[in-house]
Amino acid sequence: MGEKSAQKKQFILETARGVFMQKGFKNVTMKDIVEECGISRGGLYLYFESTRELFWEVLLMETAETDDVFEKNIPQDATVTEILLLFFKEQKKEILRKKNNLTVAIYEFFFENKPARKDNLLRNRFDTAAAILQELIEAGIEAGEFYETDTLATARNMMFAIEGMKVSAQTMGLTEKAVDEEFAYLLQNLVIMEEEP
Amino acid sequence: MGEKSAQKKQFILETARGVFMQKGFKNVTMKDIVEECGISRGGLYLYFESTRELFWEVLLMETAETDDVFEKNIPQDATVTEILLLFFKEQKKEILRKKNNLTVAIYEFFFENKPARKDNLLRNRFDTAAAILQELIEAGIEAGEFYETDTLATARNMMFAIEGMKVSAQTMGLTEKAVDEEFAYLLQNLVIMEEEP
Repeated sequence: MGEKSAQKKQFILETARGVFMQKGFKNVTMKDIVEECGISRGGLYLYFESTRELFWEVLLMETAETDDVFEKNIPQDATVTEILLLFFKEQKKEILRKKNNLTVAIYEFFFENKPARKDNLLRNRFDTAAAILQELIEAGIEAGEFYETDTLATARNMMFAIEGMKVSAQTMGLTEKAVDEEFAYLLQNLVIMEEEP
Repeated sequence: MGEKSAQKKQFILETARGVFMQKGFKNVTMKDIVEECGISRGGLYLYFESTRELFWEVLLMETAETDDVFEKNIPQDATVTEILLLFFKEQKKEILRKKNNLTVAIYEFFFENKPARKDNLLRNRFDTAAAILQELIEAGIEAGEFYETDTLATARNMMFAIEGMKVSAQTMGLTEKAVDEEFAYLLQNLVIMEEEP
């Protein structure tokens, strides 16, 4: 693909992401994308066959960007507890974000398109995040910051609670206080607090 | 409403429930309901104006039935731990149920129709379940079966984890083992296990 083509493809993907954030997945048609991009129908189909294909590429792009942002935000001298707090802070932002939020589109897409287990991007994201959390918890125990615990089960519980908050924010609404309290609960079961003298 | 009308309305609601279980909420049209019920279009509109109104009534019916089933299943002499196990068992069934599952339809409906806070049936169901769990946890602590804990935070954490498993089962798929392990984790943090001699 030439540079110009690559740029155009990228432009379409970023425009489409905006449309999915606004309308979810199921309400979006190829016509919406054509109109929002201001290109011809043929021009769109040159790059993407369907909203399904478009959404999949948006998701790949999004996943890569999220990982980058998180890693860049970790200070070199951070304690394990601080890294976990940073992770929770990022998750909180994503849970409560009103605009620029792909959550509804992601759920709508996967309700309809359940790829095979190994190709399920959502499962891969969940398992990867749980594995990173597990390593983090192990490091925290090692460093004497966290209580001894079943590290994998604790990591998966955190991921299920985060997933539960994400979907709840989109269906019943969640206050910032409710989210803070849940993260405080998760921390309090893990982090050894030093008693005040 | 005469008895015959009430029966017909009930028949429509039960048929519609089946359609929503099969197709979710967004893909269902009034035409689908007409066809599945084998009635005339006018016959349907006499009772319901829209799939939105129909779904709402299905949800009310469903909520009432679920509560009944749970209460009937509690043996008179059950310990608090046994009652909690029964609750988890019911939740597990709902999470893993492949057929007769309204989960996708419920999420699709609430993504689009966010009623005011106080009218949000999903929020009411969540808060009610959390309140019942909280009472149960208090009773367990009182009876010496459970560890001391922040009872409301523990109850809400359980509800978020359950919500996370429900949505995950519909998007990335969950094995029975994964669900069992999560419930075991929730229990293990709460129930005081007697050491074997």
